[in-house]
Amino acid sequence: MPVAKPRFDRVAVIGVGLIGGSFALGLKAAGECRTVVGVGRNPDNMRLARELGIIDAVETDAAVAAQGADLILVATPVAQFAGLFARIAPVVIDAALIMDAGSTKQDVVEAARAGLGRRVGQFVPAHPIAGAEHSGAGAAKADLFKRKRVVLAPLEENPVSLVADATAAWEACGARISRMSASEHDAVFAAVSHLPHLLAYALVHEFAGRANSGQLFGYAAGGFRDFTRIASSHPEMWRDICVANREALTKELDRYIEKLRALRAPLTAGDAEALEKVFAESRDARNRWIAGGFDT
Amino acid sequence: MPVAKPRFDRVAVIGVGLIGGSFALGLKAAGECRTVVGVGRNPDNMRLARELGIIDAVETDAAVAAQGADLILVATPVAQFAGLFARIAPVVIDAALIMDAGSTKQDVVEAARAGLGRRVGQFVPAHPIAGAEHSGAGAAKADLFKRKRVVLAPLEENPVSLVADATAAWEACGARISRMSASEHDAVFAAVSHLPHLLAYALVHEFAGRANSGQLFGYAAGGFRDFTRIASSHPEMWRDICVANREALTKELDRYIEKLRALRAPLTAGDAEALEKVFAESRDARNRWIAGGFDT
Repeated sequence: MPVAKPRFDRVAVIGVGLIGGSFALGLKAAGECRTVVGVGRNPDNMRLARELGIIDAVETDAAVAAQGADLILVATPVAQFAGLFARIAPVVIDAALIMDAGSTKQDVVEAARAGLGRRVGQFVPAHPIAGAEHSGAGAAKADLFKRKRVVLAPLEENPVSLVADATAAWEACGARISRMSASEHDAVFAAVSHLPHLLAYALVHEFAGRANSGQLFGYAAGGFRDFTRIASSHPEMWRDICVANREALTKELDRYIEKLRALRAPLTAGDAEALEKVFAESRDARNRWIAGGFDT
Repeated sequence: MPVAKPRFDRVAVIGVGLIGGSFALGLKAAGECRTVVGVGRNPDNMRLARELGIIDAVETDAAVAAQGADLILVATPVAQFAGLFARIAPVVIDAALIMDAGSTKQDVVEAARAGLGRRVGQFVPAHPIAGAEHSGAGAAKADLFKRKRVVLAPLEENPVSLVADATAAWEACGARISRMSASEHDAVFAAVSHLPHLLAYALVHEFAGRANSGQLFGYAAGGFRDFTRIASSHPEMWRDICVANREALTKELDRYIEKLRALRAPLTAGDAEALEKVFAESRDARNRWIAGGFDT
């Protein structure tokens, strides 16, 4: 038990799934919060979260949970953010730090400006880079964010001390903090996350729609399984991400189509040397990445 | 020790790597061969294969190994097939079954017709669907092909009894046998195997070539890792596969580019419903596949 006083007294976690639940557990394990109030619609999930010690109390109304809270994490699907921000705005206290855990940032900032109004300066946009196939409070764990990256995209209105609190909260969960603007965030993740999801969905959909789909899937093996793993992701979540980040994602899609067109030429020409150069450079870059060569 | 006489007396395995070595071990474990002669250029690998009991004798000349063999497996990179077929043709005995283990089939059949000449009717093209990240004799294991598929693409010239022997040899290793024509094989694998490799290489190469590649790889996470795992595959092997199967692969690449173009429309329009439909159908198809719903 840490001797120091917890940094946060009353934490409201709105959406107690994998991310929200793990955040609560991480803060608790670090002794950085006194009590956690959870908000959720699914009674079974909330009961489980209570039983697992993730939260100390259950509320169904986000405004009731946010009242008096000095840390509010909004960890629901992004589509609910606008309504939730508007709902909690009237009860947010001056000392409160508000954060989200959404996969896109420009749309979230827009929703926060609209919903939180004069409280928007207390909102520090955050994106923890830690997902998993499993969801719900039952999948939450205190070390989910350990050594994982959390991107903070602070607003101009954020006081320096508040960004420091946001940093401290995620660091208490073991995360490594990066900072970038919301637009830079969305451009980077359009490339390394949203595009691969779109590509994987597209490939599976292409084969599923063919007359010989049974034959194709019947011969698909390990390479196809890994390549398409992310095509088993939540359709609703990825629909929302793609729509929210459609501008940056369209740019990435266009660049990728251009890349494929450029590769088509040596392929049809049977230009072995050109193909091997691309493949070898790709393998080298990926192996360097896997070995930690791009860690900053 | 099985009581029955082994089906094969002298087996020549040309190229004692993961595939050739595992085939030898599988046949031995099933009691289906008396002795295995291995052919390879790398003395360390051949010594290891001998020490591990994968092979009983080492030869450097494929023609010497093939002499008197009643089963010859050519398991080198496909680029060496033409020369090897020509080299062994003069010594192949009437009773010999010749097979390969290449990832493409039409080019292999062409090489076999040219190199084996009047012996081509003894050649049963085979493609075991079992790879792994590891290679070399040290990675070989008797159960590599257990419950894995092996596609046979018999020639019109193959006697029925010879195809039965080919089937029995792979079944002795635990494999499930499928049959299709060489062109059907190449079309199917262009889609479910060769295209994903090309797409993964292309994505890594696209990001590696950008000014902010360090930033992009720095934020790439688990989804990207799995999606691009096959971009760490051997560049030379995939160069050969792509060149050999460029016609079918170009067709698949064009269809995929068309698919991406079709997805671009709902994306730019922010058509959430259309995107969710594609994503949900993809997830359902993939989950059905993972659950064995497309097994034949």
